[in-house]
Amino acid sequence: MIIVLKPDSTQQQIDALMARIRELGLRAHLSQGEQRTIVGVIGEEEKLQAQPLQAMPGVEQVLPILKPYKLASRQMHPADTIVTVKAGSNGPEVKFGGGHVSMIAGPCAIEGEEVLAEIARSVKSAGAGILRGGAFKPRTSPYSFQGMGEPGLKILRDVGHSLGMPVVTEVMDPRQVALVERYADMFQIGARNMQNFDLLREVGQCRKPVLLKRGMAASVKDLLLSAEYVLSEGNSQVVLCERGVRTFEDSTRNMLDMAAVPNVQGQSHLPVIVDPSHATGRPDLIPPMSRAAIAAGADGVHVEVHCAPEKAMSDGAQALRPPQFDALMKSLKAIAAVVGKTFH
Amino acid sequence: MIIVLKPDSTQQQIDALMARIRELGLRAHLSQGEQRTIVGVIGEEEKLQAQPLQAMPGVEQVLPILKPYKLASRQMHPADTIVTVKAGSNGPEVKFGGGHVSMIAGPCAIEGEEVLAEIARSVKSAGAGILRGGAFKPRTSPYSFQGMGEPGLKILRDVGHSLGMPVVTEVMDPRQVALVERYADMFQIGARNMQNFDLLREVGQCRKPVLLKRGMAASVKDLLLSAEYVLSEGNSQVVLCERGVRTFEDSTRNMLDMAAVPNVQGQSHLPVIVDPSHATGRPDLIPPMSRAAIAAGADGVHVEVHCAPEKAMSDGAQALRPPQFDALMKSLKAIAAVVGKTFH
Amino acid sequence: MIIVLKPDSTQQQIDALMARIRELGLRAHLSQGEQRTIVGVIGEEEKLQAQPLQAMPGVEQVLPILKPYKLASRQMHPADTIVTVKAGSNGPEVKFGGGHVSMIAGPCAIEGEEVLAEIARSVKSAGAGILRGGAFKPRTSPYSFQGMGEPGLKILRDVGHSLGMPVVTEVMDPRQVALVERYADMFQIGARNMQNFDLLREVGQCRKPVLLKRGMAASVKDLLLSAEYVLSEGNSQVVLCERGVRTFEDSTRNMLDMAAVPNVQGQSHLPVIVDPSHATGRPDLIPPMSRAAIAAGADGVHVEVHCAPEKAMSDGAQALRPPQFDALMKSLKAIAAVVGKTFH
Amino acid sequence: MIIVLKPDSTQQQIDALMARIRELGLRAHLSQGEQRTIVGVIGEEEKLQAQPLQAMPGVEQVLPILKPYKLASRQMHPADTIVTVKAGSNGPEVKFGGGHVSMIAGPCAIEGEEVLAEIARSVKSAGAGILRGGAFKPRTSPYSFQGMGEPGLKILRDVGHSLGMPVVTEVMDPRQVALVERYADMFQIGARNMQNFDLLREVGQCRKPVLLKRGMAASVKDLLLSAEYVLSEGNSQVVLCERGVRTFEDSTRNMLDMAAVPNVQGQSHLPVIVDPSHATGRPDLIPPMSRAAIAAGADGVHVEVHCAPEKAMSDGAQALRPPQFDALMKSLKAIAAVVGKTFH
Repeated sequence: MIIVLKPDSTQQQIDALMARIRELGLRAHLSQGEQRTIVGVIGEEEKLQAQPLQAMPGVEQVLPILKPYKLASRQMHPADTIVTVKAGSNGPEVKFGGGHVSMIAGPCAIEGEEVLAEIARSVKSAGAGILRGGAFKPRTSPYSFQGMGEPGLKILRDVGHSLGMPVVTEVMDPRQVALVERYADMFQIGARNMQNFDLLREVGQCRKPVLLKRGMAASVKDLLLSAEYVLSEGNSQVVLCERGVRTFEDSTRNMLDMAAVPNVQGQSHLPVIVDPSHATGRPDLIPPMSRAAIAAGADGVHVEVHCAPEKAMSDGAQALRPPQFDALMKSLKAIAAVVGKTFH
Repeated sequence: MIIVLKPDSTQQQIDALMARIRELGLRAHLSQGEQRTIVGVIGEEEKLQAQPLQAMPGVEQVLPILKPYKLASRQMHPADTIVTVKAGSNGPEVKFGGGHVSMIAGPCAIEGEEVLAEIARSVKSAGAGILRGGAFKPRTSPYSFQGMGEPGLKILRDVGHSLGMPVVTEVMDPRQVALVERYADMFQIGARNMQNFDLLREVGQCRKPVLLKRGMAASVKDLLLSAEYVLSEGNSQVVLCERGVRTFEDSTRNMLDMAAVPNVQGQSHLPVIVDPSHATGRPDLIPPMSRAAIAAGADGVHVEVHCAPEKAMSDGAQALRPPQFDALMKSLKAIAAVVGKTFH
Repeated sequence: MIIVLKPDSTQQQIDALMARIRELGLRAHLSQGEQRTIVGVIGEEEKLQAQPLQAMPGVEQVLPILKPYKLASRQMHPADTIVTVKAGSNGPEVKFGGGHVSMIAGPCAIEGEEVLAEIARSVKSAGAGILRGGAFKPRTSPYSFQGMGEPGLKILRDVGHSLGMPVVTEVMDPRQVALVERYADMFQIGARNMQNFDLLREVGQCRKPVLLKRGMAASVKDLLLSAEYVLSEGNSQVVLCERGVRTFEDSTRNMLDMAAVPNVQGQSHLPVIVDPSHATGRPDLIPPMSRAAIAAGADGVHVEVHCAPEKAMSDGAQALRPPQFDALMKSLKAIAAVVGKTFH
Repeated sequence: MIIVLKPDSTQQQIDALMARIRELGLRAHLSQGEQRTIVGVIGEEEKLQAQPLQAMPGVEQVLPILKPYKLASRQMHPADTIVTVKAGSNGPEVKFGGGHVSMIAGPCAIEGEEVLAEIARSVKSAGAGILRGGAFKPRTSPYSFQGMGEPGLKILRDVGHSLGMPVVTEVMDPRQVALVERYADMFQIGARNMQNFDLLREVGQCRKPVLLKRGMAASVKDLLLSAEYVLSEGNSQVVLCERGVRTFEDSTRNMLDMAAVPNVQGQSHLPVIVDPSHATGRPDLIPPMSRAAIAAGADGVHVEVHCAPEKAMSDGAQALRPPQFDALMKSLKAIAAVVGKTFH
């Protein structure tokens, strides 16, 4: 950590700062420049990151040198983490990371067994690896459809497992974690809950993989710090998901930060996938953004599919129809081959 | 609701759309313009807002006419709501809204009885109405101080009530609501939990006032929809809080959207206050932004105060010291008088 | 255009609005709903877009139905525009759009003949179509290198044409347009000048193609309106360029809005390319973002290349080295083949 | 400047970096920490800011210590600059800064002598110091009214000076600077041209004051760097103007960054005013935001006023009517008194 002093800082202020650093068991190195005096701190930077040194008299700015996350960082764990999602305890597996690319597909919300089964069969035959569907829906308005709850979870599991597909579904409330764990093969933490730290800790104590979506105002660093919450509880099976952030552009629902894919991969060993459905909110943009994601090196894609989007109970306007999804999978496989990866 | 059709929409598509609207028990009015065909829908717009009409073939755009919230809207409730916060069951009261302006002050985190009591006495004597302090802290990093938990809640209540001040503290987890309710006079929902809908419902079922902070990527409309979650559960005592949103400007922690104060007041009857401490993260900006908030018509201000910011366990770098707070209160009272309001 | 009236609008206000619309030679259609009265306007919406109807008493909101640009819109011109850039008056051609994909490459700034020639030979042999280099540099600080001016332009043209490559360079001042036109084969309008309307008009009166970069706070609609300025002066040879917008994410220079590629292509017939160098500012992110751009359907890519980035006089930190560029071109050609396009 | 090396940097890379720094005539101080090696550079940091050290092998990050602007910084010039605007060569003066607060008011565009004179009389009698009006209008669409040009400038000067008011008007093109200088008492550089560096240099060579508006994606640092362009050409009479930046919030035109007022004042000696008309685009928000600006310590306010907003040729929807303006001025004077300033 580097501490820059104000041009008019006094010797007394400098002494107080140096004493404080020593109190914390660290060493300080003072460097008197022509225009500024600078203090370099040697030792465990973490001890200092929690200290409000910025508030000490005479201090102009505090510059951290190390990244604030550890378990999620590639420096601590240079090899790619491969996350494996299994359909039930003995079912087929799907992998993300280390060259493995997978597709998660399904409707926004679970609406009933028949509708879900039809969608599931179509995405399975096109090449999707995991079936998604929401039973608890985080809706901006209290008057929107809030999901089927446990009966929906049961339908999701039964439909998915009957086709040999692992299933993923969102959990929103720490009190629902045990319930969701009974049915789902992978937890999804939605964008609105990326910094719901109690929820992160709760899924961190489970042993099923977690799909962690980036919040709408979260930086890449924030996303990795949220992953750190899960990892620090002992659950190392985390897949990150870029799904767009909020900006002034109003012709798409959010702005898909495609550069986050290689950006995360440079800093972390965790797999990262892209959700172009929520990122753009527009079916015409989902296929090109899915192709771009794979070309950018993403470890997977997450797409909403519905057989009758105009009748969907949630977010229908952004779902692909099965024939569109089928055509998309073909081009994704070709691009994956170019970047040296294989869908499975 | 207005539905604009694509220039190349077919008669069959138009017929299907009209049939769909009638199916929902609504009336449609078709208007064939020179460049576009437009359908106006007459009836309860809410029925339609949940429908993915955007996904129907031939539809170009869907324009809602009514606002998506009701209970929070000024149209439904033209008079200002006055929110009353009471210290315990029979203690002194503090009010927000309808001409009442109040100051919430205290440390970021509760660190111990002595430290809190010293801060509380100083802010009380300067004119603060409510004492704040965090016992459960939402920290971006799992390695930061996470709060004292229940013992902190007890200290907060004891210190506040002994001075006749109601107390407010953050609740982060639906499972903690009952616990926090035992000690606090007002719940705070933090920015990161503004769309934690299960938590909103839980405090909506309580009968203590709620301080709802705007999320970092939340629009004014989103904030009012989150308030709607609380109101729709039966709790009408909600105070909204502008605390900055996330933008590209990096010399302040967030960007304080001061215009949100009159903007919210035009659309809603709920009181709205400003938190310049979290919005700016810089003590030099807190006094001018507090003054601006009162001049803009805010129903209160929320400021962090610490006797030794350089030793605070959380967010010390942004706290005011008691003498700064005292000077600030004097100027706030003078500005409140200009805009026809009184601190109490 | 749809005009929504306030719930408490009076008959007199409605009459005044209707009279105003008729005055403008348009027809109005009044629709009295249960909750709102709405006026649909029939006729040339453009006449109304310039009118401050929003300021009329009783008006709640004004909703435009048509897009505000025409010449740039795909509706007016359904076929893709192919922009052809020629090296001098009789030299080799490079094309963008309609299935043609091209690479623009070169250093940020022209620093001298020898340096430029070395870079140019390397990018040419790797497959770049157009050579870029800045002679007039828009620098945030007045103390940064501002470019070589006319001698730089001459070097650029001589080096490019000797290799059969058309050249593109930025023009920043309407007074320089004639000068730049003498040397360059394509004008570049930088992000900071996207709404420098006098400059847009000036290049609109020339007959050389224009590379128009998106501004840092410009929406896709704003970009198309700026293109409209050029087109409306008679110059139809405009290539749009996505180069990132400004957001809260601080680990990349800007946020590359990859979805803008298909988004623009849906709304406009003009070619659109991507500049990952300025968008990300990080060499490690440029290859994956270039691949993503081609997979997303971009009509070209714009990349900065320098033989010794650590000695570059401008933006060296973000330049690729020739061997990196060479490897990149190979993968781009393979992805272009998947999406049915060819580099030339 | 501090240079942080990668954990795996080699001795050879470190030597090359040290050699490079010495080549530039600077001294380097190497500090080997437990987790990172850091190089502190002593000497003129400016020499280094232009150097792409980030591109050198082994370098992880480069942290500047000093601010990149000088003439605009308060450190170089601790006392407030007072900017004086005079009506013609011998007319009445208006001042900004150093305790002087002034109001700039008038229509968005000059539409004719009679309309302007009526507005001018009303704002003058309410207490405005400077008359504004646009003769050259930067319009997003080429089909919007572009201003009256020179005849408008003449009307503005004649109307303003006949009432003893200095006049300010926007200049958009370096070729118009001499023309505008003949008529105006103060140049306005609009938000879209904040980084039109040729235009900044041109007004920097004049000796009339400059009103420099913040760009829609400009940070406070960028604004000060743009002021530096004007100052470095010898014109020290610059008034900065906060007018909102672009964010996701769509219920106001832009987001007014009120904290920029004290933020700029802490870093720079230049006066700073607020334009709530363009920042919010809504007449209901202009009075509270004007009051907040004065309470925040702004050196002035800039407001659009029109006698018949519903007939204005540009931006009518956001103009105040004269009686609203008159009431506003009364409250602004009262708030100015509280913060120890006087309108004149």
